[in-house]
Amino acid sequence: MSRRGPSRGTPRGSGREATREPRPAGLGGEQVEGRRAVRELLAAGNRRVRSVWIADGVDDSEILDDIERLATARGVRVRRVDRARLAAEARTEAPQGVVARADPVEPADLEALLAEPAAFLVALDGVTDPGNLGAILRVAGVAGATGVIVPKHRSVLLTPTAVKAAAGAVEHVPVAPVAGIPAALERAKRAGVWTVGLAAEGQGSVFDLAVADQPVMLVLGAEGRGLARLSRQRCDLLVGIPMPGPVDSLNVATAAAVACFEVVRRRAPGGC
Amino acid sequence: MSRRGPSRGTPRGSGREATREPRPAGLGGEQVEGRRAVRELLAAGNRRVRSVWIADGVDDSEILDDIERLATARGVRVRRVDRARLAAEARTEAPQGVVARADPVEPADLEALLAEPAAFLVALDGVTDPGNLGAILRVAGVAGATGVIVPKHRSVLLTPTAVKAAAGAVEHVPVAPVAGIPAALERAKRAGVWTVGLAAEGQGSVFDLAVADQPVMLVLGAEGRGLARLSRQRCDLLVGIPMPGPVDSLNVATAAAVACFEVVRRRAPGGC
Repeated sequence: MSRRGPSRGTPRGSGREATREPRPAGLGGEQVEGRRAVRELLAAGNRRVRSVWIADGVDDSEILDDIERLATARGVRVRRVDRARLAAEARTEAPQGVVARADPVEPADLEALLAEPAAFLVALDGVTDPGNLGAILRVAGVAGATGVIVPKHRSVLLTPTAVKAAAGAVEHVPVAPVAGIPAALERAKRAGVWTVGLAAEGQGSVFDLAVADQPVMLVLGAEGRGLARLSRQRCDLLVGIPMPGPVDSLNVATAAAVACFEVVRRRAPGGC
Repeated sequence: MSRRGPSRGTPRGSGREATREPRPAGLGGEQVEGRRAVRELLAAGNRRVRSVWIADGVDDSEILDDIERLATARGVRVRRVDRARLAAEARTEAPQGVVARADPVEPADLEALLAEPAAFLVALDGVTDPGNLGAILRVAGVAGATGVIVPKHRSVLLTPTAVKAAAGAVEHVPVAPVAGIPAALERAKRAGVWTVGLAAEGQGSVFDLAVADQPVMLVLGAEGRGLARLSRQRCDLLVGIPMPGPVDSLNVATAAAVACFEVVRRRAPGGC
């Protein structure tokens, strides 16, 4: 990922920037790269798309045809640019020949997420790698999680790398930024949502998660360090993922997948 | 990942190269980058480690201390190099200040893997992205899979990116290269190993995998395209991962994780 700032001639044109208003502490997500992410941006239609750039000479594919068709249907101009221009604009390693610009992703409200009768939430306590954040959003979007809770940062959360890894999930999965995860856990308890921390030292196994069919919030810790002490203390339950093999650590996004799909399994008809 | 060839002064020094023998069509894995991968290379002690380079001025960490201690115990010289030198040698995006060189990973034999009474195998039918290959090896290593089956390629499989993503699993998980996955599926059937393809159009759910406690081979298709037709036809069972949410595709390594941990769950005491 490049650290370059906005360059001239980029597909931005946000009125907000033009009038020099202070940048809101938002979620980001304005720059969308990668074929799945751009297709889903257009297909979902949840936010205004300002522009779509496609590199000249990229391989034709069904998904690029979809992107052109959807953009046309929404009145979004598709601009063909040469590969070097697109590569210079891209902030991810492999934009797959497509870059779009859109309004930022709207933050969700924690209380609203907690009030849902079938709440299935994923709270991230210090996951900082944008690729992991995006991968977790993708998992949440496939598993039908009803929201993801993230601590507010001074930096934008939904970087182009996170958005690309999410493969379209940022268009669907509500993301609620909170001041701190421990306080969000307290609010979850008050709302009757079970808080379940994933921790190597968990008393139980994620495969014995009897509360999965009730309102539940899975809590995942930082890459490497795991759950912070205060979050660990405030969880109703701590569960571990059994690791019978010789390798003793899962990537945090993989751990999220195993836990989320255990909720899917439990909630499916006949799930035990 | 850089496409640079070997540079002078690199920590190689393989006698094989010096005597100009033809390069064997091996698995690769000689260049090991990243802290977890290098620590596990040294801890496992399954192959000769030729050199370890650590960048000057990287943050001290427990894992770097482990690397130095293990290297010393094994009589491997640790060389401190400046950051630019290490970055020039690294082939992955983020080597985390550590690069090691070792003998290649020894390929495993398919028949031996099929003969294991508790065989738990993962066959990859066209997974080409090295990051995904590495992530699947890591999952296999944590879940206790007894081997991973990959098609032979003309190119080396265990690239530095794959080895880093595997986070040490290449030291533990047997990897058997085969001429083709469909033929390997036939051999699995003859050996009494259930072949289970993961496919969106599967007749059943991965959560109904009653054969998981018997010898089993999970078969995963390529990113995007899924299982090839011939592989799909030769599987005993095709199962899908339920996707109740609005996003309809999982990364192949995530799908591997969900399926592998379903085997873990079923094989655990009390698993149903």
